[in-house]
Amino acid sequence: MAFGFTVLKKDAGTRARLGKLVTPHGEVQTPVFMPVGTQATVKTMAPEDLKALGAGGAGIILSNTYHLYLRPGHELIAKMGGLHRFMSWDRPILTDSGGYQVFSHSQLRKITEEGVKFQSHLDGSYHFLTPERATGIQEALGADIIMCFDECPPYPSTYDYLKESMEMTLRWARRCKDSKKREDQALFGIIQGGMHKDLRVESAGRTVEIGFDGYAIGGLSVGETKPLMYEATEYTAEAMPEDRPRYLMGVGTPEDLVECACLGVDMFDCVMPTRNARTGTLFTSFGKMNIKNAKFSEDSSPADPECTCYACRNFSRAYLRHLYSAGEILGMRLNTIHNLHYYLTLMDDIRKAIREDRLTSFRREFYHKREVDQ
Amino acid sequence: MAFGFTVLKKDAGTRARLGKLVTPHGEVQTPVFMPVGTQATVKTMAPEDLKALGAGGAGIILSNTYHLYLRPGHELIAKMGGLHRFMSWDRPILTDSGGYQVFSHSQLRKITEEGVKFQSHLDGSYHFLTPERATGIQEALGADIIMCFDECPPYPSTYDYLKESMEMTLRWARRCKDSKKREDQALFGIIQGGMHKDLRVESAGRTVEIGFDGYAIGGLSVGETKPLMYEATEYTAEAMPEDRPRYLMGVGTPEDLVECACLGVDMFDCVMPTRNARTGTLFTSFGKMNIKNAKFSEDSSPADPECTCYACRNFSRAYLRHLYSAGEILGMRLNTIHNLHYYLTLMDDIRKAIREDRLTSFRREFYHKREVDQ
Repeated sequence: MAFGFTVLKKDAGTRARLGKLVTPHGEVQTPVFMPVGTQATVKTMAPEDLKALGAGGAGIILSNTYHLYLRPGHELIAKMGGLHRFMSWDRPILTDSGGYQVFSHSQLRKITEEGVKFQSHLDGSYHFLTPERATGIQEALGADIIMCFDECPPYPSTYDYLKESMEMTLRWARRCKDSKKREDQALFGIIQGGMHKDLRVESAGRTVEIGFDGYAIGGLSVGETKPLMYEATEYTAEAMPEDRPRYLMGVGTPEDLVECACLGVDMFDCVMPTRNARTGTLFTSFGKMNIKNAKFSEDSSPADPECTCYACRNFSRAYLRHLYSAGEILGMRLNTIHNLHYYLTLMDDIRKAIREDRLTSFRREFYHKREVDQ
Repeated sequence: MAFGFTVLKKDAGTRARLGKLVTPHGEVQTPVFMPVGTQATVKTMAPEDLKALGAGGAGIILSNTYHLYLRPGHELIAKMGGLHRFMSWDRPILTDSGGYQVFSHSQLRKITEEGVKFQSHLDGSYHFLTPERATGIQEALGADIIMCFDECPPYPSTYDYLKESMEMTLRWARRCKDSKKREDQALFGIIQGGMHKDLRVESAGRTVEIGFDGYAIGGLSVGETKPLMYEATEYTAEAMPEDRPRYLMGVGTPEDLVECACLGVDMFDCVMPTRNARTGTLFTSFGKMNIKNAKFSEDSSPADPECTCYACRNFSRAYLRHLYSAGEILGMRLNTIHNLHYYLTLMDDIRKAIREDRLTSFRREFYHKREVDQ
């Protein structure tokens, strides 16, 4: 098994760790942000674009099992040589299990102990996903890291519902592990338990008992407040093993990445930088900016004067605004390049700060800059 | 004036010429195809993408005065340092005069001797374009080559209408030349006259009398048959000066480029490679292919096995079809890269054939391949 994780260094002032993931498609430095390539493409970006981004480019990307299963189908992708070859991406990939999307995208889902019956958001056709099937689909796709099929309960849910759901997710985790056949993929378990510390700690302990290559915190960033999310991340991360990667699923804003890296999270993914780019919102060193704003119409400065991305090196706010107003695809792409570059260089800055034991002061400056410049 | 044109060599078997355009933004080898960047962007393509295409990339692009005048406005672009700087394109640009778009895009146009009153296709606002104004707008945009404001009559039109229109276009051409102030832009006259040889020859002669840096054939590819279009191109090109570039506006298919280069045309532009790319039609060495076709769903070969573009080097027909089906922007971009690469390398092949006096055999092989492989 070509998978491994090593903690290289701990930050002196926080719980942050500098680490290294080893996968069949190469090594990844952590803490890491994974751009989301839902349909076998990080929207608007070619593989060479992803590699040309700051800090060595995207080290690992995430793709969605639910979407690929429905279109073009995991069997087709397997026939085409697997997901890496299909999308011409030779660096690591993580696929989710489809669990979250089944709950958030599909219609008329019905959950039983066996699995989840749901209707496709594309054509209304009926499908049945089980832990075994979700694992098999991910084995067909062939990502470096695959995830257990879990239930992601809505927020808020009752304590009893969360407990029962957690129990089922634990039974499903065992079934995922038992059904897994490929030796060249890492399997991560997912910790649930809502915003309840006792459930999270129990979920973490019993997931670790089953034993996985890494562990994820699921069911956060689902509508709860930021303090509640950070609190849940903190006590869940504390209950997770030191020697395995900790992956906080679906999070988050630049602030979330800084906060949760400080709490000991190693891996992140979120659609925010790519989705917001397509609607004209840019992440910058001084906070968010809306490129649609009329005040940028004759602004000849780059989106973020401190940024070194292709978009900021070559184009003005006025041009980006024009492209957005005119509905030009290049606008979405340049915004995506900028936002992903921002996220990846932010993670690189966090890694450097851990290496130099100064993440606490980095965090202070990160917020200070936003207050001053906004 | 930094503009010049030199015929370097004539083909032995056809009327084709190998030439060199000199502009303030560099030299361009002819015959040349100009990708269309309507709204200050060649749709889906960044400047670095255009330069990375085959045969040294796009040597010159076209942008549309009508669109830029309406959005974001020529004055804004002038304030931002001109069109080259606004779109970060440091190679030559040609702008059309807006004449054709006024006739094809706008509503409720009213033509008088003074100019054309029309309603914007964007917001219904009223505008008035005259030869002087079209020239002033193009001077604000700052392209290397600008075009006279002409009337492009619909097809078919009566002989009398075409003659009157030609007379007005000649008067407008004089007004464009007289109102031109910038010394660093070349101004091209446009020859009209429909499908009538006598009108075309008269239009050519009298436009040349006024005197321009180059001459365009306007009013073709507007609905007439291919034989009629080639015939009109032939007698019009014959009536044009040897020592000035000949630009066939809005043409055309790969076959049109081969045919009309053989008739002595030096410059082409057309939305076909970019527009067709976005709807899934690819130009290949064996003819057109529709990537949406279900037969490509599990086809692991590249779009065109003979092609060396980024898309064909890295992705399968199955992947391109998936991107199209899933509505992914990357699909439109990869298709655009492929089609423009095809057009630009075709022009390079034509130039090489002229250099080696074998355009006639090149043309034969070009058609032969399509018959055999389709």
